[in-house]
Amino acid sequence: MKVKITETVLRDAHQSLIATRMRTRNMLPIMDKLDQVGYYSLEMWGGATFDTCIRYLNEDPWERLRSLKKQMHNTYAQMLLRGQNLVGYRHYSDDVVEKFVQKAYENGIDIFRVFDAVNDIRNMEKAISVAKKQGAHVQGAICYTTSPVHTIEKYVELARDLAEHECDSLCIKDMAGLISPHQAYELVKAIKKEVNLPVDLHSHCTSGMAPMSYMAACRAGVDILDTAVSPLAWGTSQPPTESIVAALEETERATGLDIELITEVAEYFKKIKDELRCVLNPISEQIDTNVLVYQIPGGMLSNLVSQLKEQNALDKYKDVLKEMPRVRAELGYPPLVTPTSQIVGTQAVLNVLMGERYKVIPKEVKDYARGLYGRPPHKIDEDILVKLIQDEEPITCRPADLLEPEYEKMKAQAEKLGLIKKEEDVLTYILYPAIAPAFLRGESKEEELTPIMTEMHPCAVSSSQGIPTEFKVEVDGDVFNVKVH
Amino acid sequence: MKVKITETVLRDAHQSLIATRMRTRNMLPIMDKLDQVGYYSLEMWGGATFDTCIRYLNEDPWERLRSLKKQMHNTYAQMLLRGQNLVGYRHYSDDVVEKFVQKAYENGIDIFRVFDAVNDIRNMEKAISVAKKQGAHVQGAICYTTSPVHTIEKYVELARDLAEHECDSLCIKDMAGLISPHQAYELVKAIKKEVNLPVDLHSHCTSGMAPMSYMAACRAGVDILDTAVSPLAWGTSQPPTESIVAALEETERATGLDIELITEVAEYFKKIKDELRCVLNPISEQIDTNVLVYQIPGGMLSNLVSQLKEQNALDKYKDVLKEMPRVRAELGYPPLVTPTSQIVGTQAVLNVLMGERYKVIPKEVKDYARGLYGRPPHKIDEDILVKLIQDEEPITCRPADLLEPEYEKMKAQAEKLGLIKKEEDVLTYILYPAIAPAFLRGESKEEELTPIMTEMHPCAVSSSQGIPTEFKVEVDGDVFNVKVH
Ligand SMILES: [Co+2]
Ligand SMILES: [Co+2]
Repeated sequence: MKVKITETVLRDAHQSLIATRMRTRNMLPIMDKLDQVGYYSLEMWGGATFDTCIRYLNEDPWERLRSLKKQMHNTYAQMLLRGQNLVGYRHYSDDVVEKFVQKAYENGIDIFRVFDAVNDIRNMEKAISVAKKQGAHVQGAICYTTSPVHTIEKYVELARDLAEHECDSLCIKDMAGLISPHQAYELVKAIKKEVNLPVDLHSHCTSGMAPMSYMAACRAGVDILDTAVSPLAWGTSQPPTESIVAALEETERATGLDIELITEVAEYFKKIKDELRCVLNPISEQIDTNVLVYQIPGGMLSNLVSQLKEQNALDKYKDVLKEMPRVRAELGYPPLVTPTSQIVGTQAVLNVLMGERYKVIPKEVKDYARGLYGRPPHKIDEDILVKLIQDEEPITCRPADLLEPEYEKMKAQAEKLGLIKKEEDVLTYILYPAIAPAFLRGESKEEELTPIMTEMHPCAVSSSQGIPTEFKVEVDGDVFNVKVH
Repeated sequence: MKVKITETVLRDAHQSLIATRMRTRNMLPIMDKLDQVGYYSLEMWGGATFDTCIRYLNEDPWERLRSLKKQMHNTYAQMLLRGQNLVGYRHYSDDVVEKFVQKAYENGIDIFRVFDAVNDIRNMEKAISVAKKQGAHVQGAICYTTSPVHTIEKYVELARDLAEHECDSLCIKDMAGLISPHQAYELVKAIKKEVNLPVDLHSHCTSGMAPMSYMAACRAGVDILDTAVSPLAWGTSQPPTESIVAALEETERATGLDIELITEVAEYFKKIKDELRCVLNPISEQIDTNVLVYQIPGGMLSNLVSQLKEQNALDKYKDVLKEMPRVRAELGYPPLVTPTSQIVGTQAVLNVLMGERYKVIPKEVKDYARGLYGRPPHKIDEDILVKLIQDEEPITCRPADLLEPEYEKMKAQAEKLGLIKKEEDVLTYILYPAIAPAFLRGESKEEELTPIMTEMHPCAVSSSQGIPTEFKVEVDGDVFNVKVH
């Protein structure tokens, strides 16, 4: 049976390679063609795109959704939703989740891919049930990682759990590009055997294995593969659409996609990539063999180097590299993805730089230990847990059960500020209360594309004071600051 | 059984990505480590490296061979030999072939990979038999291409023929990166079934399929894979060593290579790549989907664009693209590799630009039609053949049978010019009579690395007159000239 293809060029691909900086105007001229290729779906919303629209592009993400959707007649519109985190960085209350999912559906999303960083389904439940109620297709995603507790059985159990939550399909979300062909084969095979749902494999080329793992997954019966048209493929992005399509031709898993049309699409995105080259991090275009040796995602390592440089402690690099897996084990082997990658990474850096482990503990790590991010894949080491939360009691309920409803309160606040023109603006305000007001008032400006200045190829934040001295650098969607002294 | 790995970083990888410009001094510091990784062999000589050493680097290729070999104790030293063309661009007489192979063996080559552009084994016979007599390992290579006459049966027949010529192993040489996973599986399976020799798969990532085809080849029982350490992998080069090694771990085909050591090697070559970035053609780092659509190797297309630009005829691009497969078919479906790629490409350009097909016919095309390059895979179209050679008789013998011995005559000539310090210098002179004299006299200079000037990222030829106005551009080892007016 033919493999379906989800094209990621409008979301994950540019989030992975060019700091999510593609503009709606970069997308519109090619939508007609994209819609004719024969893709199963276009991932085109969610993830970091919402944040970037407001923070850097002076674009209304809701408007983007509507205008793209208008040109999609043959292809499902798909978004990535961070479970209870929606498209933000904290848990939102259930009423906000409900409203957001409703509005996303109303504005055009057909397929909601929902995940949680620690694979705690309680953090996904609300989003799933609201999306289902709307009539949307819900794809339940499993964050893939490797650890002694991440066994095939565990993943199959998760898959079964998602099926019981009425997900319409499943996604193996390998955000770090860790999955090997062997593992992909075994995992897909096992899930397909136990759960009667279409399975999607989503991987990144970071370690260079993804295209091979995709082939193995095909042999194991995977239903959908996530690819990116070649100019925005490879590196920390997805495998190239054209190569995967060509590789499957002449086989029983052939995709049926129009490769000449994809080539025209590729020609178009070559130009877009050139236009946006100043935000292209060349590191993200390379194979990161550190993923293979240390099992640590590439983005985390770039962050680490920057953090250590700022502290004049680059000589501690190897020590921190060794500390990371240790901290991760002690914290119950969370998959390393936003926000758990920051939690593990920051604690590891502090442990090394302070000369004493867990001498300083950030609030986020304490919250994680208290269960506020959900249930870790494995029990937190008991001695460490005491250090982290002392005599505080960890929570056992669903984290969002502790949150008061916030929609109406925030709505009133925003209305008082005169920010609201449409209901969606309330959601924008709730998600980004710090930056949304200026945006909603029409006082934001689109970031200018400036030439590349530093090794990290950051995009300069245009400053009215003149020369920028502070850069926001995004790696794999994580933002951090670099100051130029 | 474990898969053996041939590392190409010292030959094909840098020939594919950085115009063969790696210096011996870039190689020596890492040789010890390379030798400890566990590779089966290191491809480190032959192909375009000989030419480049003399033409651009002011390096003695024989000296390179000896100095690299000194540090190789666990790994075979491998070279690429163009059959009767040796490391040059025309057929040499048998006495020259004999002397060259002897000297290459004496100076350290363990494995000779021998190929011929049109897979005419008569063009390989002499080199094979001399190498065998020396006691070397001979790997007989089959140039892979796709056409109605290039069937599995045909390739198996070639393989059998090479086995009868006492080759010690076989290589499927997919220089354009055309082979799909499906084709790789079928071809390796078929050859392994019929011929009892180790089989190597050599491919390029041009179309993005190579890593996937390598995995398929592993399932079919391939014995050796050619890979390049990651900084010099992908694009028009080989799949990354680390990714292939990691992808095979936990399987019965695991390579046993030391991935931490490879990571150190990769760190080293990252720096070398940065040093030589000015000769990196960014086009060669991209996936070339045109290979998939037109079955034409990437390098040929870049050449084509340049040729047409020079003629102010870029609007004829699509016409020439369509003409190429037609000419190739009429000429009997030669694989597109030096020199047949130039033969087909130039004729196609002339056919379009002249407004009449075969109105102008270059000497090389006539020679090809007369059989001077060997026997084409398929009969040349009869009507076209008449146009090409009129009433001249095609040859039926082995092309080199028509060549007079030339070694002694050229040796006397070179000695008279005072060029010879060691016997190998005679060979250098015979191979490159135009540029060897200055080099052998010590009057050549190493090309300077200059910043990138044009879209094609050519390496400026340093000129004593000042600003360079003429560039030599190499794509996949083919040199052509670009003038800047
Ligand atoms: Co992703
Ligand atoms: Co090659």
